[in-house]
Amino acid sequence: MGYGLEKGKATVPGPPIELVEGDTLHIEFENTMDVPASLHAHGVDYDIASDGTRMSRSHVEPGATRTYTWRTHAPGRRKDGTWREGSAGYWHYHDHVVGTDHGTGGIRKGLYGPLVVRRQGDLLPDRQFTIVFNDMTINNMPADRSPDFRATVGERVEIVMITHGEYYHTFHVHGHRWADNRTGLLTGPDDPSPIIDNKITGPADSFGFQIVAGEGVGAGAWMYHCHVQSHSDMGMAGLFLVAKPDGTIPGYEPHHPAASASASASAPAASASVSASSEAKGGPDAPLSTADPTGHAH
Amino acid sequence: MGYGLEKGKATVPGPPIELVEGDTLHIEFENTMDVPASLHAHGVDYDIASDGTRMSRSHVEPGATRTYTWRTHAPGRRKDGTWREGSAGYWHYHDHVVGTDHGTGGIRKGLYGPLVVRRQGDLLPDRQFTIVFNDMTINNMPADRSPDFRATVGERVEIVMITHGEYYHTFHVHGHRWADNRTGLLTGPDDPSPIIDNKITGPADSFGFQIVAGEGVGAGAWMYHCHVQSHSDMGMAGLFLVAKPDGTIPGYEPHHPAASASASASAPAASASVSASSEAKGGPDAPLSTADPTGHAH
Amino acid sequence: MGYGLEKGKATVPGPPIELVEGDTLHIEFENTMDVPASLHAHGVDYDIASDGTRMSRSHVEPGATRTYTWRTHAPGRRKDGTWREGSAGYWHYHDHVVGTDHGTGGIRKGLYGPLVVRRQGDLLPDRQFTIVFNDMTINNMPADRSPDFRATVGERVEIVMITHGEYYHTFHVHGHRWADNRTGLLTGPDDPSPIIDNKITGPADSFGFQIVAGEGVGAGAWMYHCHVQSHSDMGMAGLFLVAKPDGTIPGYEPHHPAASASASASAPAASASVSASSEAKGGPDAPLSTADPTGHAH
Repeated sequence: MGYGLEKGKATVPGPPIELVEGDTLHIEFENTMDVPASLHAHGVDYDIASDGTRMSRSHVEPGATRTYTWRTHAPGRRKDGTWREGSAGYWHYHDHVVGTDHGTGGIRKGLYGPLVVRRQGDLLPDRQFTIVFNDMTINNMPADRSPDFRATVGERVEIVMITHGEYYHTFHVHGHRWADNRTGLLTGPDDPSPIIDNKITGPADSFGFQIVAGEGVGAGAWMYHCHVQSHSDMGMAGLFLVAKPDGTIPGYEPHHPAASASASASAPAASASVSASSEAKGGPDAPLSTADPTGHAH
Repeated sequence: MGYGLEKGKATVPGPPIELVEGDTLHIEFENTMDVPASLHAHGVDYDIASDGTRMSRSHVEPGATRTYTWRTHAPGRRKDGTWREGSAGYWHYHDHVVGTDHGTGGIRKGLYGPLVVRRQGDLLPDRQFTIVFNDMTINNMPADRSPDFRATVGERVEIVMITHGEYYHTFHVHGHRWADNRTGLLTGPDDPSPIIDNKITGPADSFGFQIVAGEGVGAGAWMYHCHVQSHSDMGMAGLFLVAKPDGTIPGYEPHHPAASASASASAPAASASVSASSEAKGGPDAPLSTADPTGHAH
Repeated sequence: MGYGLEKGKATVPGPPIELVEGDTLHIEFENTMDVPASLHAHGVDYDIASDGTRMSRSHVEPGATRTYTWRTHAPGRRKDGTWREGSAGYWHYHDHVVGTDHGTGGIRKGLYGPLVVRRQGDLLPDRQFTIVFNDMTINNMPADRSPDFRATVGERVEIVMITHGEYYHTFHVHGHRWADNRTGLLTGPDDPSPIIDNKITGPADSFGFQIVAGEGVGAGAWMYHCHVQSHSDMGMAGLFLVAKPDGTIPGYEPHHPAASASASASAPAASASVSASSEAKGGPDAPLSTADPTGHAH
């Protein structure tokens, strides 16, 4: 299963959706699978009719279509003087219906994706990668084909890290660190945020950060992995390949098993993709996505 | 088992205790159960004689009484220039004696409750709800009767979230978010705190936040649940019912199983409650609470 | 197994290494064990040749020697205006090779230690203790001999808390609290960091904080423990012994089982220690350490 922006083009994770605070996104969601499915988002504003749950009758029957509307807002002051937070954050979307009323079956098979809401003025990355620890997989890939990610020294790389499923994990990257705050970047020299390179996460947690590839450490095949020992030993590990400007990566052996893994996870064989259309009001034209299996694979 | 402010009125969770930084609370704790029990608090200041542990001999034998004293303090500057934190926080209290020297049996059966310490000037909520993920239950309720909570659009709602027992969980609320800081509210536009709607927690972790019911999303039956998939599937899910001013909740079916659950969890049948008296010095007259079973139910 | 600064003096945890932002440390690492081993650090800057992984061929064969170089840096402004974080933090080092390519066997047996990087001007503690929750042990000690730590009321005590292995834990100290930020100390009255006395952690997470022993609560035998109920019940608990200036500890019974445990964990019987030499460039002369078993003990 997978979400896609066009029929036949589902991916796992689903396509990245990016908004800026203030945007509203209408998603024309077509369910080409043979089981009911839905779209439930974290972080954004939506009426209960866009909740994507069976209880609120906001799911989509096989062959049917539904429009989900997500709104976002900038931070602001309430009448009582308190500050209302903005929508900016590293969020995600997922099914809430397939298998169980919490979407356990849909999530397991790949019905999830990243949703980034930026604040006006937030720095844009040169590259963006999504890493999802879903049960004991990374991006639903088999253990021996965990995804690798490539960048060149000095590029601003954004990692969107999402956890799904049943287990807790600890996300670790070699040679790179980030601030444990909203953006992963310090707001200034007095920002008290912890600097970390390892973070415990559980299902539906999400966070993101920007790092400068190889900053202070240079090019290399830097591992990223779950640091729960049995999880990494069973394959929850991939490479953040940081190349020199000439494209070489010191010490990296291309015949290493990890070298044959593709950087972008493809949808499982049992998936077929789907068409979807979207319209954006007051915001970017951010199209979206739906789900589809080829039948017997549930 | 349960703590209560009066005999025969034990509840699970125990009664909310609220202090303001600077307050001292004396709790006359009477153990009407037939096993030793105690009161151990997180976050507040107490001498070792109020630790509530068997090792410090600060537990209470069946039929006996003991005074526990909890103090609190405002933030301030130490002589060496560092800042001493204040006592303000979303804390909790629990037994540390029943079943094992860590109170595993007492906690399992319901000997726990919320303790909120406010800073002078902190905003007071219109409503306060306590949600305890205790092993695989919410507030010790059976899976099909997880508590629902009710508010009206625009009300300021405070959630006190506590975890107990054996498992890790991820706490998620639909349609609402909070800042991952001391109060859940941003201190201003430069507060770097992450905005979240899902948080990993483990036993004895506690946090709290205030949200404006339905802000930006409107009325509805908004789910809250543990996002560990098997946990929500097994029943760790309830409803945050946000009504319009006229009392209606769009899309909410009152015959839904969750609709029959009461908002406040009652003590298990095997519990009988207890009397307790308290006196407050230099602070509010915040009465408290003890524990009691009816005997054969251990 | 254990790391040590001299042959025959391995300890578990390994020796504390302390740097100040700007320091570079060269570690002459000698592997006196009969299996390949390595040194992998969190938080600091190092070329891929100092990664300590088999994949980067930066591990050390039995009887061989290798120089690992760790660099650190102060925070600073990047050309694009963003703030680069500094290296300061409560970090750690560990093996990444023994048993599996993630060092699962080496970590299990004790190949880990604390690494503290301070910012210029950070307050130094009077005492420093390292607490490692490694699988179901504290500092690899048997359950009935978990380490105790001693201080006198008013001393500034620094706790470096590291988790390793397979399980998640919640770290709790009785009677003391800290800010959940970089240093554990508030940066000022507007610091929004949560104040906590309990924190969920997973493998390779690390944090630290400074507390004033007995501040506001006085002398006593204060428990610290994992708050996962089965973990504390099985022995993941020790004592933070805070004495009065005259050396007495109110309510503390020296014949309590915990009283016989030594404050500093010693290396397991099966370990023999190792010699190591180091040189520091542009920084302190912080010597370091390697690993060694006595052979049949793997």
